[in-house]
Amino acid sequence: MRTAPPKRITLLTDFGTADGYVAAMKGVIAGIAPAARVDDASHEIPPGDVHAASWALAAYWRYYPPGTVHVVVVDPGVGSRRRALAVAADGRFLVGPDNGVFTRVLDEARAASIVAIGDAAATGAAVSATFHGRDVFAPAAAHLCRGLPLVQLGTAMTDPVVLTLPEPRVDGKALRGVIIHIDRFGNAITNVPAAAVREGMCVTVAGESCTVRRTYADAASGDLLALVGSRGVLEVAVRDGSAAARPGVERGAAVCVSDAALP
Amino acid sequence: MRTAPPKRITLLTDFGTADGYVAAMKGVIAGIAPAARVDDASHEIPPGDVHAASWALAAYWRYYPPGTVHVVVVDPGVGSRRRALAVAADGRFLVGPDNGVFTRVLDEARAASIVAIGDAAATGAAVSATFHGRDVFAPAAAHLCRGLPLVQLGTAMTDPVVLTLPEPRVDGKALRGVIIHIDRFGNAITNVPAAAVREGMCVTVAGESCTVRRTYADAASGDLLALVGSRGVLEVAVRDGSAAARPGVERGAAVCVSDAALP
Amino acid sequence: MRTAPPKRITLLTDFGTADGYVAAMKGVIAGIAPAARVDDASHEIPPGDVHAASWALAAYWRYYPPGTVHVVVVDPGVGSRRRALAVAADGRFLVGPDNGVFTRVLDEARAASIVAIGDAAATGAAVSATFHGRDVFAPAAAHLCRGLPLVQLGTAMTDPVVLTLPEPRVDGKALRGVIIHIDRFGNAITNVPAAAVREGMCVTVAGESCTVRRTYADAASGDLLALVGSRGVLEVAVRDGSAAARPGVERGAAVCVSDAALP
Repeated sequence: MRTAPPKRITLLTDFGTADGYVAAMKGVIAGIAPAARVDDASHEIPPGDVHAASWALAAYWRYYPPGTVHVVVVDPGVGSRRRALAVAADGRFLVGPDNGVFTRVLDEARAASIVAIGDAAATGAAVSATFHGRDVFAPAAAHLCRGLPLVQLGTAMTDPVVLTLPEPRVDGKALRGVIIHIDRFGNAITNVPAAAVREGMCVTVAGESCTVRRTYADAASGDLLALVGSRGVLEVAVRDGSAAARPGVERGAAVCVSDAALP
Repeated sequence: MRTAPPKRITLLTDFGTADGYVAAMKGVIAGIAPAARVDDASHEIPPGDVHAASWALAAYWRYYPPGTVHVVVVDPGVGSRRRALAVAADGRFLVGPDNGVFTRVLDEARAASIVAIGDAAATGAAVSATFHGRDVFAPAAAHLCRGLPLVQLGTAMTDPVVLTLPEPRVDGKALRGVIIHIDRFGNAITNVPAAAVREGMCVTVAGESCTVRRTYADAASGDLLALVGSRGVLEVAVRDGSAAARPGVERGAAVCVSDAALP
Repeated sequence: MRTAPPKRITLLTDFGTADGYVAAMKGVIAGIAPAARVDDASHEIPPGDVHAASWALAAYWRYYPPGTVHVVVVDPGVGSRRRALAVAADGRFLVGPDNGVFTRVLDEARAASIVAIGDAAATGAAVSATFHGRDVFAPAAAHLCRGLPLVQLGTAMTDPVVLTLPEPRVDGKALRGVIIHIDRFGNAITNVPAAAVREGMCVTVAGESCTVRRTYADAASGDLLALVGSRGVLEVAVRDGSAAARPGVERGAAVCVSDAALP
């Protein structure tokens, strides 16, 4: 007798929705695991942007309850010999290509197991060369959701592709980091952890300086400010505006944090 | 014994989806209220556009059955001292910032109760300064969905922030209104109620005049027309085209409705 | 006693989400069929593009299990005398305007029954002239999902509007087709079936030639290639790029496939 609520699958892709690719994945899941709840995380990851997908996934994977299966299909290498992965990490599952998209999850998880998905295990039908979201990852997720043990999906492995994530470095009295993500609001999110930041510190980016505040409302409308955001790292923002609209504020740009007073 | 179908939560935000913010909210809800159905209303409200959010919400809040919890997170004042609200209105619940986003619902509802959400009631974890969608509104909605009485979420209040919505005014034999929303199709929706409009009347906007018709198909392709739309107010449209592509047809533009025959 | 999992409804529209139109449809469905699962297929079909909707629908309709109700509201003729259809095709249902949007489904289905929906059968409330998604199609889908027999929705008919879909034609030793869809990645999808194509053949489009490969990874980054895609037809693509960014690669453009070696 099953009394637990049905498990969940989340979908993160760079497919957009207008071509019907995402709906094909949902249909495959509905056929294999009809009781599964399917949540759209996003289908608007920029095409092929594995870094952006890794960042977005890290925003939510752990907020979902154990048993959730997170599918990520940002897969510029589809059809090549890149492996397909299924991962168990702190009670959640992850399914997607072996291209580094799980880097942040694997960094954060206390424990993780990884298998390389065998094509035959995932689906009974022919696998296309271009759409493993439908033909490999959706079936694998649906089978996990129904309770198939991870190990039955493929072969254990321990060497997933990982992205090189830049670390901030100490430079005299300053801390030098970089912008790692620009969000919808034009906030420039850095790799500088909250623990290294105090209100009133000076932050320099793209030739402009601003002060670390507690929240947006502590700056005047249109002013650049810095603050610790919801991901626990330093962000540079413009109140009621977009930091990314300033020239040079973009992914990869250098950020310097120091105690120096603003001029 | 619970026999009712699980209750629903709808989400309306200006977050887009690509940063994972929406999925974090869904994960929080899944953790607290695993049986809840979560519907995406939209995540494409223009950033910070409280008027657009208020308009969109009014399109659907009442079509959902009683018990539904509508979450709205268009929240340019996040982190400031603006209050967080939970509302009961005609059997539905609403959760979001106190910035006027519920104005139209409160206008339409026969009865409403409002509480200012206490941070402590909404979530056990630390509340970030920048993401109350995840840290306050999603938990509050999930608790309401599980049956927590509204009054246990916070303190009763009666003075929510309301938007000033322009009313049409009579000017001699004409009725003068304004465009209050431009929709996806470029239709210009006005504040002129259906009751003030008859087929054949003349509508002037941005220096152009057109006639009130019953439906799009009553105009020639490419022609400007006016009609009563699905929200019960006058819209200006272009058949097989976009009224908003005409110069001056934009939110706030004046509209004049009269019995005058077109020249 | 009901033991089957709740049935599903999918939604495909050109509404976008920001105006609340889609959420109004979801609310109507929730009121009539509270146990139904509702999947967003897409709301980003270009406004009024019946061809694009027909293409997207064909990507997923059959992957969903029998009993699913697929709603399509891309309806430039709303309010005119165009009919509203409900279709049963190979165990799935389809609901939408009679404008050709079901052409590909009807081509693919082994068996289909069609009714013209009577307005009165679909909803008890007044039907607007502009929003049959909310007032006709959503209620009809919800009633089908609850088990209402198709024939009770309206009057049987056999002459739906169909789109003229171009067929490739043999021209000497070459096969001449056209581009029928451009997808999110800029892949140019043609009407040339996989059975007519072999690896190594030459494909010419918009004055450029390329070779048929097995998958993207068989071409160099930035190079034009052709391959059989996930829909079982020939696609023209650029590895790590967009074929549609090349001048002349657009819907309707001619494509020629031959055994001729590349110069």
